[in-house]
Amino acid sequence: MIIENKLKMPKGFKASGVSAGLKKSGKKDMSLIYSEKECVSAGTFTTNKVKAAPVVYDMSIVKSAKHGVVVNSGNANACTGKPGLDDTEKMAELVSTKLGGDKSSYYVCSTGVIGVPLNMSVIESGIDKLSSSLSSDDSALYEASEGILTTDTAKKCVYGEVVIGGKVVTIAGFAKGSGMIHPNMATMLSFILTDANISQDVLQKLLGESVEDTFNMISVDGDTSTNDTCLILANGETGNSILDENNPELNVFKEALEAVLGTLAKMITKDGEGAGRFIEVRVKGAKTKQDAKTLARSVVSSNLVKAAFFGSDANWGRILCAMGYSGAEFSPDGTDLFFSSDKGSIQVVKAGLPLAFSEEVAKEILLEEAVAVDCYLKDGDGEAIAWGCDLTYEYVRINGDYRS
Amino acid sequence: MIIENKLKMPKGFKASGVSAGLKKSGKKDMSLIYSEKECVSAGTFTTNKVKAAPVVYDMSIVKSAKHGVVVNSGNANACTGKPGLDDTEKMAELVSTKLGGDKSSYYVCSTGVIGVPLNMSVIESGIDKLSSSLSSDDSALYEASEGILTTDTAKKCVYGEVVIGGKVVTIAGFAKGSGMIHPNMATMLSFILTDANISQDVLQKLLGESVEDTFNMISVDGDTSTNDTCLILANGETGNSILDENNPELNVFKEALEAVLGTLAKMITKDGEGAGRFIEVRVKGAKTKQDAKTLARSVVSSNLVKAAFFGSDANWGRILCAMGYSGAEFSPDGTDLFFSSDKGSIQVVKAGLPLAFSEEVAKEILLEEAVAVDCYLKDGDGEAIAWGCDLTYEYVRINGDYRS
Repeated sequence: MIIENKLKMPKGFKASGVSAGLKKSGKKDMSLIYSEKECVSAGTFTTNKVKAAPVVYDMSIVKSAKHGVVVNSGNANACTGKPGLDDTEKMAELVSTKLGGDKSSYYVCSTGVIGVPLNMSVIESGIDKLSSSLSSDDSALYEASEGILTTDTAKKCVYGEVVIGGKVVTIAGFAKGSGMIHPNMATMLSFILTDANISQDVLQKLLGESVEDTFNMISVDGDTSTNDTCLILANGETGNSILDENNPELNVFKEALEAVLGTLAKMITKDGEGAGRFIEVRVKGAKTKQDAKTLARSVVSSNLVKAAFFGSDANWGRILCAMGYSGAEFSPDGTDLFFSSDKGSIQVVKAGLPLAFSEEVAKEILLEEAVAVDCYLKDGDGEAIAWGCDLTYEYVRINGDYRS
Repeated sequence: MIIENKLKMPKGFKASGVSAGLKKSGKKDMSLIYSEKECVSAGTFTTNKVKAAPVVYDMSIVKSAKHGVVVNSGNANACTGKPGLDDTEKMAELVSTKLGGDKSSYYVCSTGVIGVPLNMSVIESGIDKLSSSLSSDDSALYEASEGILTTDTAKKCVYGEVVIGGKVVTIAGFAKGSGMIHPNMATMLSFILTDANISQDVLQKLLGESVEDTFNMISVDGDTSTNDTCLILANGETGNSILDENNPELNVFKEALEAVLGTLAKMITKDGEGAGRFIEVRVKGAKTKQDAKTLARSVVSSNLVKAAFFGSDANWGRILCAMGYSGAEFSPDGTDLFFSSDKGSIQVVKAGLPLAFSEEVAKEILLEEAVAVDCYLKDGDGEAIAWGCDLTYEYVRINGDYRS
């Protein structure tokens, strides 16, 4: 069961979100997630070679982090050199002093302006506030989900519940996504809490695989940030028999986790900068799953395809073209293409050649807010789905605006 | 000596350009290039797996083509299946019947709308007109350069002259570039004629290397077309001692060829769809030349960087970020960044960290029509230059417009 736009606190966790004063607007700008009982955790991080200080730090503590995450928005602590790394470690240390455990028990995440040192006195008082307002109420989780936002126009929250070994396991997640961060770049942060009992290595494996099929299949503008981070904490409070490779119910948990991440990924895309239309590209019959993913991502990332969707244009040629230069193996001669939405479905390409179709019907389908492209190939069993958005005047306006 | 925006007919060539009637506008839509004496030729072609019929055909005749090229605009003959291939071969056959030589002596290129069969009766009468109006005047070369255009707003012409073995060798080139083709995609076509005496295998090698450093270093929107083609014909009329691997003057020819292609590449970028600003990204000190190319191309292809240039924003963070996710090896800590234009130069990043700089001075520099980014690394001797343009409202308007 997946509930969108709602949060439920998994057993044994506490959270808080406060306004520390990093943002001039007075909006919430710090969040804390905490498990009193030691938990296991896993993370996936940006592949950008320019990594913000907190990313460098977090990558080094994945196996030792056992208690929580502290986050600030308004400042990404990126391109800040050695002092930036020191500030990150100081944040972890301040939290551990308040809540107990080693410094390396706490992840640190930052998002916002880059190239500017953190104001550590504001951060310190923020951590005081966060620690004293920790609560296990669901409302505290909502507050935490607000403290990580930057230019997002909507909160991204979801939770799922599944029964494992006769016990209810909760997986709650929230994210921030692709709003442009003054003055520099989009960042995706995502935090998942679960009371499942699961081994660390299996948790890392499941997270990696699920991120690959969800967050890594979305594209707003093709730019991978310096700060992208997805963390999951699992504290075992449900008391289910441990989820390891031998547990027959592991797949139940994996499916729920993937649904939570997939829901967040789609929410991020829908709130993409200037996005007016949500695009889902579904590839079936590719030679391999990897080929299917490469094809789907290429279509959803093409500026020409994105601009065509802005114009509700049934431009099958740009889709075939983006598949063609993706680098994936496929037979153009075996390609069928369909456009669809709530208004219906229309085939536009059969065996690689254009069909005569009603432009009026196609336009009606493509004027919807959420549209899909189905690419059926005849090369194998590979399947994949990618999500994106159209390329709009608003995107250019937001990102062409002078930093001020 | 490289002369921009001018053409000179190399010795022994003839050309023509006519309005056959493929374009409703009545503009020129067919061109012919012809060498009566047998020539050698070389070509580079789109890497898109969806290849238009003429590309498939041309790739098969590179070693046998000895006389010329026939081109039509207004229809790309792409996604047209077996009938499209038959039409391409028919075009070559019609030309060979008129001018002599085997069918496989003539290249065929097409650009324009995709998924629509060629009107072969119009093509046939066009080939009649082209054959009867062939001329060795320079003006005929200008006419040929017009017959290949689609939505280009400017002609792209250049020639160079170099002395080899005491004789003057002429290299003339013209191109069409990145206008959106109704209804589908941008195509780059480029034709180079030279009266140099050169071996086919060396010509192919030089063309491949030169294209790699010129046409393959430009980005308008990252979409590689189904029809991209660059052809060169060399008829040896200059009578220089043959340019092969042992000729000490081979490099003189190569430099001139690269200058001709580089000039055309920059002209295509400047005429990119909706482009308001020309961007040159220069990388020095990369680990390898390949790393330098990957870094330069990543910066010039980033939507976020392109949008920042639209806003004349000295957004060094987006540049570092695009370098970071390029996949190339480099040390962010060793990176220096400068912005420059005719108004001066300003350093914004030193050793990976931001410098305090005057936003006013930066803005004055970036308001120019042509701007440059210099990325100095400390990883090795690799160098590369890439060219691109900004991302504008006009780009979205042109490409979001409904096909009509």
